[in-house]
Amino acid sequence: MRDFSGDHGWLSINTATVRKSSGVELPLPQIIEACARRGIRAISPWRDQVASAGLATVSKLVRDHGLALSGYCRGGMFPAIDQAGRQAARDDNRRAVDEARELGAACLVLVVGGLPGALAGRAAHKDIALSRSQVTDGIAELLEYSRSARMPLAIEPLHPMYAADRACINTLEQALDLCEQLDPLSTGADAGADGTTQPAALGVAVDVYHVWWDPKLQSQIERAGRARQMALHVCDWLTPTVDLLNDRGMMGDGVIDIARIRGWMEDNGFAGFSEVEIFSSANWWQREHGEVLDTCIARHRSAV
Amino acid sequence: MRDFSGDHGWLSINTATVRKSSGVELPLPQIIEACARRGIRAISPWRDQVASAGLATVSKLVRDHGLALSGYCRGGMFPAIDQAGRQAARDDNRRAVDEARELGAACLVLVVGGLPGALAGRAAHKDIALSRSQVTDGIAELLEYSRSARMPLAIEPLHPMYAADRACINTLEQALDLCEQLDPLSTGADAGADGTTQPAALGVAVDVYHVWWDPKLQSQIERAGRARQMALHVCDWLTPTVDLLNDRGMMGDGVIDIARIRGWMEDNGFAGFSEVEIFSSANWWQREHGEVLDTCIARHRSAV
Repeated sequence: MRDFSGDHGWLSINTATVRKSSGVELPLPQIIEACARRGIRAISPWRDQVASAGLATVSKLVRDHGLALSGYCRGGMFPAIDQAGRQAARDDNRRAVDEARELGAACLVLVVGGLPGALAGRAAHKDIALSRSQVTDGIAELLEYSRSARMPLAIEPLHPMYAADRACINTLEQALDLCEQLDPLSTGADAGADGTTQPAALGVAVDVYHVWWDPKLQSQIERAGRARQMALHVCDWLTPTVDLLNDRGMMGDGVIDIARIRGWMEDNGFAGFSEVEIFSSANWWQREHGEVLDTCIARHRSAV
Repeated sequence: MRDFSGDHGWLSINTATVRKSSGVELPLPQIIEACARRGIRAISPWRDQVASAGLATVSKLVRDHGLALSGYCRGGMFPAIDQAGRQAARDDNRRAVDEARELGAACLVLVVGGLPGALAGRAAHKDIALSRSQVTDGIAELLEYSRSARMPLAIEPLHPMYAADRACINTLEQALDLCEQLDPLSTGADAGADGTTQPAALGVAVDVYHVWWDPKLQSQIERAGRARQMALHVCDWLTPTVDLLNDRGMMGDGVIDIARIRGWMEDNGFAGFSEVEIFSSANWWQREHGEVLDTCIARHRSAV
């Protein structure tokens, strides 16, 4: 297992973590500058932040600073109530692949969606099996496109408390079942003709917040292996948690044994960045972003 | 599948549902009277409510009204930081078995506990595997006692969002793995010498709120079969859910396809009560309990 205690070479900042500074929206270019100043080598930006700053601007900034993108957030949201909705999701997801490609992201993270309308409090139906079937179809279709663009897709299983409104893929086992169904040979995972290893076309993003509770976590990480493990997202689970979405904790402030999970992943071939993704409306988003980034660096060394 | 639309013969009221009436604590004897007046045939009381009213008083009331107990809430909370804590849990769980026996409950529901101290916001450690091991040991020990008292134990897998502070058994699969480990022969589940069927010594309580999201729910219900299915708890998952503990919805107000889950259970031999268990600090606990019970009756007929 890699030793993170001496530096933050493997730290990535998911830009949602500093979406706000002292409660005020922080533009992506400023986030990038602040990361670069601290020697942070990687980020994972959100599409809305990229859109606000302009794709070309962000792309140039990323390249000028030599930043890696541990991922791009996000594609997905496949289920819809009609063909028009599914077509809109298909088009939007293809644009997300193109943007991820332009930015040089390691993968496009997929938050697959739940019951159509549930996010707005008006679920169109209660048939989660139907949503899951639409997710399968949606990823299958997107996979053809992303393969040709050489952009790996990382399915992110979300915590079951988001099953209704955000993602009906809720365990690593379920995500891997889907990977095996749609990409049984882990296409691209074999060594290339030049001896280099290509990432698989389809894999998973492991966010400790979503999966830490799972009694099958270790065995499913073993099953995922090197080819399917595309991203590691870290934060912490607070007790009590007072908001289902925006009360994530800083690594070390909660109950997740993050190092143990990272150890399992590395034992099975993961060697990428540890990406900090914290949504925290009452705490971290109220602090100055420099303090938040410095804390991420410190906790990356002590608690990840 | 049984038709519930014509009456409420299979309705049970978990007494937490009317723990408060118009925001004020409602004593258990009044809850029992209110249920009996409405022809409700079963309840499932909480230990603290029974203790407040007195076990003998409650026992007499239950018998006088001819009420069944679909369960007794609750035993469990096995993990502790030291031997003294585990001994205290052991003693308390034996008392819970005795009380359940005195009240004629169908089963003692087990909420198994999580990380010691987490419920108070101060987890003593982050080793959920250790807690799970202590749960296994605790149930194994309690099972010897409960068997001699002929009181079935129903492990209730809790939603993963409670893994830290309330229960580290979080899926039906995990609960059934434990049942098979500790009671491989479903002791007591075979037909008795007189041809009657005895309940198993160890099984599960299926609360739709906790398990509705699980992609393996149907297959695990099939695995549970008649012997292990000891209770069905119903309420609904609201979108949005604004509180992790006390924002459960009335059946029909959320996204859970309750009838489908009940159908799976009945296809696999379940024939017991449908127990309404709603924790709702901002809505149902603020209403007059008669209105709440009448709504439970109506929704039992239309949405369960």
